[in-house]
Amino acid sequence: MKNLLLTLRFNGARYHGFQVQKNAVSVCQVFQDGVERIFGSRLDVKGCSRTDTGVHALMYCLSMRCEWDKPCERLVPALNRHLPDDIAVVDCREVPMDFHARYSCTGKEYVYKILNSHIKDPFSPNLIYRYGYTLDAAFLREQAQDFVGRHDFASMCSAGSDIQDTRRAITRFEVERQGDVVCFRVAGDGFLYNMVRIMVGTLVYIGSGRLAAGSIPDILAARDRGRAGKTMPACGLYLSRVYYGDGVAFGNGN
Amino acid sequence: MKNLLLTLRFNGARYHGFQVQKNAVSVCQVFQDGVERIFGSRLDVKGCSRTDTGVHALMYCLSMRCEWDKPCERLVPALNRHLPDDIAVVDCREVPMDFHARYSCTGKEYVYKILNSHIKDPFSPNLIYRYGYTLDAAFLREQAQDFVGRHDFASMCSAGSDIQDTRRAITRFEVERQGDVVCFRVAGDGFLYNMVRIMVGTLVYIGSGRLAAGSIPDILAARDRGRAGKTMPACGLYLSRVYYGDGVAFGNGN
Repeated sequence: MKNLLLTLRFNGARYHGFQVQKNAVSVCQVFQDGVERIFGSRLDVKGCSRTDTGVHALMYCLSMRCEWDKPCERLVPALNRHLPDDIAVVDCREVPMDFHARYSCTGKEYVYKILNSHIKDPFSPNLIYRYGYTLDAAFLREQAQDFVGRHDFASMCSAGSDIQDTRRAITRFEVERQGDVVCFRVAGDGFLYNMVRIMVGTLVYIGSGRLAAGSIPDILAARDRGRAGKTMPACGLYLSRVYYGDGVAFGNGN
Repeated sequence: MKNLLLTLRFNGARYHGFQVQKNAVSVCQVFQDGVERIFGSRLDVKGCSRTDTGVHALMYCLSMRCEWDKPCERLVPALNRHLPDDIAVVDCREVPMDFHARYSCTGKEYVYKILNSHIKDPFSPNLIYRYGYTLDAAFLREQAQDFVGRHDFASMCSAGSDIQDTRRAITRFEVERQGDVVCFRVAGDGFLYNMVRIMVGTLVYIGSGRLAAGSIPDILAARDRGRAGKTMPACGLYLSRVYYGDGVAFGNGN
């Protein structure tokens, strides 16, 4: 018996998130279908994170215990043959038996992509959120620094979660423009329900003047979801890096 | 009455090429549906080129005569509202009445994209051709220079065309690698049926050793389609620039 850590990339457009659900197709279910074709039985899979419907992953980690005598890297092409085009396995390595993709995780990074243009991009259906009002990336990056540090993020959390402790540490928040694309990149030790999408929505409100510059500290202090910006649509969100132990992540996350 | 030149970008994955066909959905037909919603009648549209099923365009030009009293650029958002997500209008300008998107065209540029990897990309369904054998872009660029110049390209033309004169001038042929993507960029005064896809297929055969280095001049001289490489799949091909008159193209083609 081995414990394997697998790294995936997936286009979440047609999935109801990673975790298995009744009456809806999930990434995990389709992944387990592929696993079953190779191992002959349905293996238990531990994902690093729940993801919402329509959210993508440039890097997603999962662990599973299985009998696999061949070199680990051989499982990559074997699994890819049994997975649809929108789910790719990019890495497989053996980890200690007590490793758990979710509980061993020490941090994550997300990317949110906005196509800042009045004209749609025919080549990225469901892969970016289009927003016409011109955003100043340097200004938003400056504003976003108020999220960095250890704070209570209750104002940045949608209802529907039973988490009690809403304190989290954000370690980095970058906002960059590349042509018409504005890319938000945020890393932290953990994220509440919809937290990234609400943080980005708050920055977009500041960028368009619907919220005042410098208002993030007050919004956080209020611990009131109603004070923050809107929850941005899922299509622009990517889980981009997963950290374990001393900061090592597998795959490139780009 | 005005004559307008419109520049489009489209994802060709779900279309049977640009030109209107019986029993198949074409880009032109869907474009004309949008035009009809604005003008109240079905206008005649002159496209710059036929394109094959599944071929994309980073820049596609068409001309049409119509009654339009408002500023030309107002037609861009108006049309985009009536077009599906995979067809975007990016530019509109008035041209002389005798301008014809196809007959006035003096040159075109195509891009062919290969994902040179054993692992699929979940984010580009039908937008790139994946090929596992490692290609040396610098070597292929060198080989491709044998296509540059005025030659008889009968060996690079699929059957099914009634063109008599198979001579064309290729002005530029670049091959570049960016990460796992190998990008072929070829410009010329005109292209025969499947010519770009067969030229790229011939280079891929040279790159993988199925054809000898330096064999392009002999293959061209033979005027025999059977001597060249395979016709590459449509999904990797993009019309990327359209030239008129003294080399002016509209839009950025990237």
